[in-house]
Amino acid sequence: MKNLKLASRETSERTIIQIGDLKIGQDFLLIAGPCSVESEEQMFETAQAVKQAGANMLRGGAFKPRTSPYAFQGLGLKGLKILEKVGKEMELPVVTEVLDTRDVSWVCEYVDVLQIGARNMQNFSLLKEVGKTNKPVVLKRGMYSTLSEWLNCAEYILNEGNPQVILCERGIRTFETYTRNTLDLSAVPAIKELTHLPIIVDPTHGTGKISLIPPMSFASVVAGADGLIIEVHHKPEEARSDKEQALRPELFAQLSAQVLKLRKYYLEELQ
Amino acid sequence: MKNLKLASRETSERTIIQIGDLKIGQDFLLIAGPCSVESEEQMFETAQAVKQAGANMLRGGAFKPRTSPYAFQGLGLKGLKILEKVGKEMELPVVTEVLDTRDVSWVCEYVDVLQIGARNMQNFSLLKEVGKTNKPVVLKRGMYSTLSEWLNCAEYILNEGNPQVILCERGIRTFETYTRNTLDLSAVPAIKELTHLPIIVDPTHGTGKISLIPPMSFASVVAGADGLIIEVHHKPEEARSDKEQALRPELFAQLSAQVLKLRKYYLEELQ
Amino acid sequence: MKNLKLASRETSERTIIQIGDLKIGQDFLLIAGPCSVESEEQMFETAQAVKQAGANMLRGGAFKPRTSPYAFQGLGLKGLKILEKVGKEMELPVVTEVLDTRDVSWVCEYVDVLQIGARNMQNFSLLKEVGKTNKPVVLKRGMYSTLSEWLNCAEYILNEGNPQVILCERGIRTFETYTRNTLDLSAVPAIKELTHLPIIVDPTHGTGKISLIPPMSFASVVAGADGLIIEVHHKPEEARSDKEQALRPELFAQLSAQVLKLRKYYLEELQ
Amino acid sequence: MKNLKLASRETSERTIIQIGDLKIGQDFLLIAGPCSVESEEQMFETAQAVKQAGANMLRGGAFKPRTSPYAFQGLGLKGLKILEKVGKEMELPVVTEVLDTRDVSWVCEYVDVLQIGARNMQNFSLLKEVGKTNKPVVLKRGMYSTLSEWLNCAEYILNEGNPQVILCERGIRTFETYTRNTLDLSAVPAIKELTHLPIIVDPTHGTGKISLIPPMSFASVVAGADGLIIEVHHKPEEARSDKEQALRPELFAQLSAQVLKLRKYYLEELQ
Repeated sequence: MKNLKLASRETSERTIIQIGDLKIGQDFLLIAGPCSVESEEQMFETAQAVKQAGANMLRGGAFKPRTSPYAFQGLGLKGLKILEKVGKEMELPVVTEVLDTRDVSWVCEYVDVLQIGARNMQNFSLLKEVGKTNKPVVLKRGMYSTLSEWLNCAEYILNEGNPQVILCERGIRTFETYTRNTLDLSAVPAIKELTHLPIIVDPTHGTGKISLIPPMSFASVVAGADGLIIEVHHKPEEARSDKEQALRPELFAQLSAQVLKLRKYYLEELQ
Repeated sequence: MKNLKLASRETSERTIIQIGDLKIGQDFLLIAGPCSVESEEQMFETAQAVKQAGANMLRGGAFKPRTSPYAFQGLGLKGLKILEKVGKEMELPVVTEVLDTRDVSWVCEYVDVLQIGARNMQNFSLLKEVGKTNKPVVLKRGMYSTLSEWLNCAEYILNEGNPQVILCERGIRTFETYTRNTLDLSAVPAIKELTHLPIIVDPTHGTGKISLIPPMSFASVVAGADGLIIEVHHKPEEARSDKEQALRPELFAQLSAQVLKLRKYYLEELQ
Repeated sequence: MKNLKLASRETSERTIIQIGDLKIGQDFLLIAGPCSVESEEQMFETAQAVKQAGANMLRGGAFKPRTSPYAFQGLGLKGLKILEKVGKEMELPVVTEVLDTRDVSWVCEYVDVLQIGARNMQNFSLLKEVGKTNKPVVLKRGMYSTLSEWLNCAEYILNEGNPQVILCERGIRTFETYTRNTLDLSAVPAIKELTHLPIIVDPTHGTGKISLIPPMSFASVVAGADGLIIEVHHKPEEARSDKEQALRPELFAQLSAQVLKLRKYYLEELQ
Repeated sequence: MKNLKLASRETSERTIIQIGDLKIGQDFLLIAGPCSVESEEQMFETAQAVKQAGANMLRGGAFKPRTSPYAFQGLGLKGLKILEKVGKEMELPVVTEVLDTRDVSWVCEYVDVLQIGARNMQNFSLLKEVGKTNKPVVLKRGMYSTLSEWLNCAEYILNEGNPQVILCERGIRTFETYTRNTLDLSAVPAIKELTHLPIIVDPTHGTGKISLIPPMSFASVVAGADGLIIEVHHKPEEARSDKEQALRPELFAQLSAQVLKLRKYYLEELQ
């Protein structure tokens, strides 16, 4: 693919990113947690449930990129402190989205993995900044982004010296309105052809509908995804953001069991 | 979904369409064959190979809707006669695309199943005409079509008295250029929520890339698809259309074995 | 542009299509009238008003390609007879959409110009059929169609021996929901670069909003369009289709005066 | 429009933004200049030419958001100093894009107007930061952005206390590949219905083709745009970015004369 040097498939073996015992790109990455960090109680309850269900990373937003300035913008530092505390106690690495170049260095003090959201995929200053850290970065695909543009954004991070990029397909914008976005699962094997970086899928934002999350999670596994990121809330009806697409812990537990079993089948039969 | 009467999920149990022993909507439908019928030899060799590999329906175009008037337009009646002969000899039901209201009644003499292509999804005259036959109809999704519009097209067919509609997701058009179309697999479970009609997936046109056909086929199965339609040519390099996306028989055989095994896993573990 | 022979800019001087005194491609074509022919009274009242306002062609649908089979499908032959009668009496050539290859020859008995709608742009059988007539054809752009595909559809008509094709930009489908479609006005000068055929614009379907029709009409004129097609109904609130986007005759009269004056300005100052 | 308070049409008279004698939202804003600031000579020559041709603001990028990290990224501070110097000498206010929250305050020392590019439209941290300055802000529409999302981004700026937002339509991303983007001119009158903020058009990025810039500029004027932003380079063949879409000064001078005359016509006849 044009212009790619460091991210190109030809330049490297498959990238494995290690966090503790977890080897991303080899072990199946199952990130779960609420859209926003709202309280210690919420995070503990959710974290406990998802860990028990098999999740190996905890998500929670402290800075929320909301369409309207009047929507809940996240708890900020307070949220990060909760996230760190809960992650440590539950022995789960934690990931959070970062929105501002000025926040990158101090957010790194609290989390294990940084996330660049879809709206900031081509925020090149932010890409360079996370490229200067030693934290793995989940780089979401912009909702209008070609595969080539997306990989060039990964290249921005790699080019600053940080080789730990995890790509995340989260749906693109099309004319379809039944789903929130159109999850482009062909991106998974296509990205595998083009780069050595791991790729995970976000079926929550990719569909925006609880009923579609399980089938799209299964489809992601057998398309070759290296992981999933799924919104789970212990009481979705009380969530301050994305309440209509967060799974209850029970539903997540069932999904997780199916996903992890299917992953084994995939490795044995389909790879 | 607005305006739907006959096609709506609420109005009926899951539709099962029976052709000989094959129960579409229950048995996994595996349609294979070349883009265009080119010769008796081509059809026999391909049909033999796909039947042995597990396909239970044979495809082959006699009328080809080509972007340019100067491209190969299909063998017409001659192609239909070959298709019928080969289908009978190989004991495979056959499906072909129909483009013109004037052709519908006599094309029915030669084939078991009619196909409405993506470009004709909203050719309402043609929908009404196939709705007057007693043949099952594969209705492909238009490349710009919402789920609602697509189901309304099925409604046109049902409303004429033909209840045997098989929906087929074949990719929508987006800004992405790496793939020929963007295969919208979330349409599979979404359609299952909205209608009782069976839905199959066309990973060949949906991706336009041989390397992406296997992973997207696997993904279709676990997303709940009732079948697949895949282009296979005994000598792709000599094909008169779509040569870059037709599978060789050996590759199809391998894919078919994996797909049918995965389907069993799906029925036992994921449904 | 690839594959184009007859439609290519290089092969011909600008095409002029003559109907009576009207020279399309030279004179500004102003087509007006209701979405559907509903009654003689409706057509007479509307035709009288639009003729007086400066329109030089009358539109009216007898066969309506509606999303739902339960929506009003047009008056058919009865509608054609009304259209013909009113056109003759008002001395306005008439245009109507044709949906079915079987209708083309007899519809030609009633109208001066045939229209191929956006949903049938790639109905190649229909293109070939209208290509065999001696009637000018308004070929609307499909809502998902590239310029290249559109011009290849014109090529289908030209290739059958009918050189009288008028292209019509009517909006493409995008993610935007404020407008019904996204009117792609850059298509006007782009098409002028690529082909010798005239191009008109449909701001009614292109925007779906009465308030946006005047500014988009003005923009079309100075972008170099050869004409406009605008829905006008003498009593929009009683229209059987598209009531929310039909102009009242008074508003059309005002728009028409502005458009025709601006066209003069364009020819003198901007061409 | 949902959620809008400060940006909504109902809350205010049309916003007029004054810079020296220039009243944006009333006077026609004609911004011209190169994609990137490359040298003092380049800026002087271009500025002189565009000023003489009627431009009333000078553009020039010092920080360039490039798809690839290996493409020219702009001269940074050096570029800003050149821009400031040339603007002062030529008595033209200057506008430049800002990419990073950390740069906003010091960039304000050098320029009259800040620009938020399409890729940063939903960089909410950056929006808040420019909202804290007293500089007018050109807010480009994201290439995937609905009108509603775009106006909510303006709301972010207004909500921080800066009422001086100039919206800029610059083309959205569609399936069409003949043009670089699809310029959505219906956004101009639509935005006028929804907000009191001025809106300008960028036909350079909107089309990516020199031949389409004049017709789309004319169309913008009569669609009601409050201004245009056009890339001009004194020697396009030597430009370090966007060389294929920059106008030569002579072509800009001709276009500018036509645009300004057409604007007068618009105010007298079409408003």
